[in-house]
Amino acid sequence: MTADPSARLTRLNAEYARALDDDRLEDWPAFFTDPCLYSITSVDNHRQGLPAGLMYADSRGMLQDRVAALREANIYERQSYRHLVGLPAVLDDKDGALLTETPFLVVRIMRDGRMDLFATGRYLDVLAEDSGLKFRERIVVCDSSRIDTLLAIPL
Amino acid sequence: MTADPSARLTRLNAEYARALDDDRLEDWPAFFTDPCLYSITSVDNHRQGLPAGLMYADSRGMLQDRVAALREANIYERQSYRHLVGLPAVLDDKDGALLTETPFLVVRIMRDGRMDLFATGRYLDVLAEDSGLKFRERIVVCDSSRIDTLLAIPL
Amino acid sequence: MTADPSARLTRLNAEYARALDDDRLEDWPAFFTDPCLYSITSVDNHRQGLPAGLMYADSRGMLQDRVAALREANIYERQSYRHLVGLPAVLDDKDGALLTETPFLVVRIMRDGRMDLFATGRYLDVLAEDSGLKFRERIVVCDSSRIDTLLAIPL
Repeated sequence: MTADPSARLTRLNAEYARALDDDRLEDWPAFFTDPCLYSITSVDNHRQGLPAGLMYADSRGMLQDRVAALREANIYERQSYRHLVGLPAVLDDKDGALLTETPFLVVRIMRDGRMDLFATGRYLDVLAEDSGLKFRERIVVCDSSRIDTLLAIPL
Repeated sequence: MTADPSARLTRLNAEYARALDDDRLEDWPAFFTDPCLYSITSVDNHRQGLPAGLMYADSRGMLQDRVAALREANIYERQSYRHLVGLPAVLDDKDGALLTETPFLVVRIMRDGRMDLFATGRYLDVLAEDSGLKFRERIVVCDSSRIDTLLAIPL
Repeated sequence: MTADPSARLTRLNAEYARALDDDRLEDWPAFFTDPCLYSITSVDNHRQGLPAGLMYADSRGMLQDRVAALREANIYERQSYRHLVGLPAVLDDKDGALLTETPFLVVRIMRDGRMDLFATGRYLDVLAEDSGLKFRERIVVCDSSRIDTLLAIPL
């Protein structure tokens, strides 16, 4: 890690959230190393060591497939999302990898203008250098096990 | 811009939100250069290049007029607001001006204690030095085109 | 205060929120000096100078007692919470103490997965060095005077 990891962490998290909220899903896989680990799970599953229920990918190719599936199903476009990413806690920094935990909240905005709290939780991240700071792992642990969605979208 | 724009950006955004949430509307115009550009619009209007629907001002005088109108109508006092401002993304930095995009969420608190999600969106800002860091432009792009308000309030 | 108070402020706020959201209530008193001042109040009470309605403690022992009471009543475990802590504003820095104000939003997640906006407000903090940065005072001023809770939980 370089001299000021927190500024880079902030930038990475801000750019990640912007890409999703701007509906630039095609840019999303490039935030990860290849191979990588991305999963969306609930706090109950995570605590019990159960496999991720909502989404799992271990390569950029799998992330790209997920984006293609969302585009084909035309699911993502029916509403928009707004991520509010909280203060990151740096848990560990060793062997060139940074372990962090960052809370988030996502609001969903329906086509007719209605807004609701879509998800809250925390990102459990392992960050590494790979032509810039990337997610080697991003485990999305949702606080609620009831996510109101037909097809899992990236969080 | 000076050595550490991000700390100053954070401070400016924090102070701006505090002024609005503390009902110190009279302090609000001083966050802008004069002339300036302030508008509140929806993501649909913004994408189509349509004029701002909810509020438009291009000078401190117009911002002051808006505050006077809100005070006269006694609208603002009927509820309070809480801004949560997210991580800023610095998009460009040239000719002494900083282009940034910052997500926000605003909760409205009614007199009887009820709370609701009032607005989410992003600030598209151009910042410049003018006796301190100021907003030369602040375009407030709301995610929802349905803002539940009788008279537009500053966001 | 040392060279970069803002990074330490961010870390302290992130760790505080994590402890509560991870249900590590027993770690909570250690975020405070001893003696200290911790209270939860509403904006109306705070403005009128009335005593804190929801919680008051002036020592780590009182904070520990509160945790014990919550554990005994088995209240805290019935739901979980997610804090989103906003940008801190540093109001003053003198005699080794830092006065700050920081907005927050707390979402409550019920056992059945439902989520609601539980509280918004601001932390009015006095921070001091005491084997690391600690809260000498943390006044939690809730925006709403209607907090939907049987027994006050730490915020």
